[in-house]
Amino acid sequence: MRIDVISVIPGFFESSLEKGLLGIARKKEHVQVYVHNLHDYGLGKYKQVDDTPFGGGAGMVIRPEPVFACIEALMTERSYDAVIFMTPDGDRIDQSTANRLSRLKNLIILCGHYKAVDERIRKKLVTMEISVGDVVLSGGEIPALLLMDAVARLIPGVLGDSESALTDSFQTGMLDCEYYTRPAEFRGMRVPEVLLSGHHKKIEEWRSENALKRTQERRPDLLDGDSIEELRKK
Amino acid sequence: MRIDVISVIPGFFESSLEKGLLGIARKKEHVQVYVHNLHDYGLGKYKQVDDTPFGGGAGMVIRPEPVFACIEALMTERSYDAVIFMTPDGDRIDQSTANRLSRLKNLIILCGHYKAVDERIRKKLVTMEISVGDVVLSGGEIPALLLMDAVARLIPGVLGDSESALTDSFQTGMLDCEYYTRPAEFRGMRVPEVLLSGHHKKIEEWRSENALKRTQERRPDLLDGDSIEELRKK
Repeated sequence: MRIDVISVIPGFFESSLEKGLLGIARKKEHVQVYVHNLHDYGLGKYKQVDDTPFGGGAGMVIRPEPVFACIEALMTERSYDAVIFMTPDGDRIDQSTANRLSRLKNLIILCGHYKAVDERIRKKLVTMEISVGDVVLSGGEIPALLLMDAVARLIPGVLGDSESALTDSFQTGMLDCEYYTRPAEFRGMRVPEVLLSGHHKKIEEWRSENALKRTQERRPDLLDGDSIEELRKK
Repeated sequence: MRIDVISVIPGFFESSLEKGLLGIARKKEHVQVYVHNLHDYGLGKYKQVDDTPFGGGAGMVIRPEPVFACIEALMTERSYDAVIFMTPDGDRIDQSTANRLSRLKNLIILCGHYKAVDERIRKKLVTMEISVGDVVLSGGEIPALLLMDAVARLIPGVLGDSESALTDSFQTGMLDCEYYTRPAEFRGMRVPEVLLSGHHKKIEEWRSENALKRTQERRPDLLDGDSIEELRKK
């Protein structure tokens, strides 16, 4: 997969693309990430990329010309499966979005910054608008990282142990169960005995019961109205 | 505000704390961020921080000892208002969480990694569990950045133009309206005439109508069941 990220602060990504999962995915060559500086496509001597909003008000708005120029330059090189704009009024990211995107080849991710981007960019160039929640951020850079991380870890070969991704929260439509590791007792807190029993069937039962209870308590919306008793039967 | 971040890949944060909003907030000394390497509190010669899960299965689980040691070391130095764990089964972040946290003084953010953290850490040390959405990531580092960005931009003095934060999406309980900037016409696409009119009252009306329509179309859940006609009257 190739991802082209467009940002006004490309340097933001340096260490976060080197370390952690994205660093690994890039080193293994499962993902190529190219970060483009929008200022390279800026206007005039000062490489201007933004301007005041028509109609007045606080904050700056990213102008159409630099974004069109950057994306069109990329599009002459190859075809893209999606031009994604990270924005709080987009569709909220979830695991199925990540699954879907992980099967694509070439993505552009446009990071907004300042107050907004000119709406004509969204209407004409952007094919997917993705939100990371009802919260306002300084720009699309962190949401872009989030999306790339969620997607990259699903690409076969990126995670060392691919089974691990399949049992994650949400892949099963539920939250994951509690996990414990050594020591079996820490400051008087003992791990649930069943996990030490070596009895695989009982462990599996405990885990699905625990995951169910946790989902019921924390995210009953995921259970789609089914009661815990009904779900136990499934 | 002081934020202590605990991570197994502290280097991940380097460039993202230097550039952009968090870089500015730190340079202006409105926010101090200290990133702690969990391996510094690891066990034995290899500074081990994780182990296999009791009961078997794929993935590694962060052990309690290093996390307890790190957090307790911080707590002997000062008192903390919250120990936040970034996790997909936590409470979903929203603007009111960001508002609330922006008024606190000392925060710890624990970033998970690998399969999970030992549940005893969550039960005993963590006071807030925050999710950035129904999506699985490689660790809590990107969610921690997201939370810090959302919070830091609300601290007075961090944003150049504080008015800008108040009119953002969600601060008004609605999505923000469309924005346009120069040029007035770009490739045959013209900005809405009213925004060029200089008629402040009409511009205000257009913006609230546009924000309302946008919210109705994209996020009717935010409108709490009120019809667009009822909301217009408010």
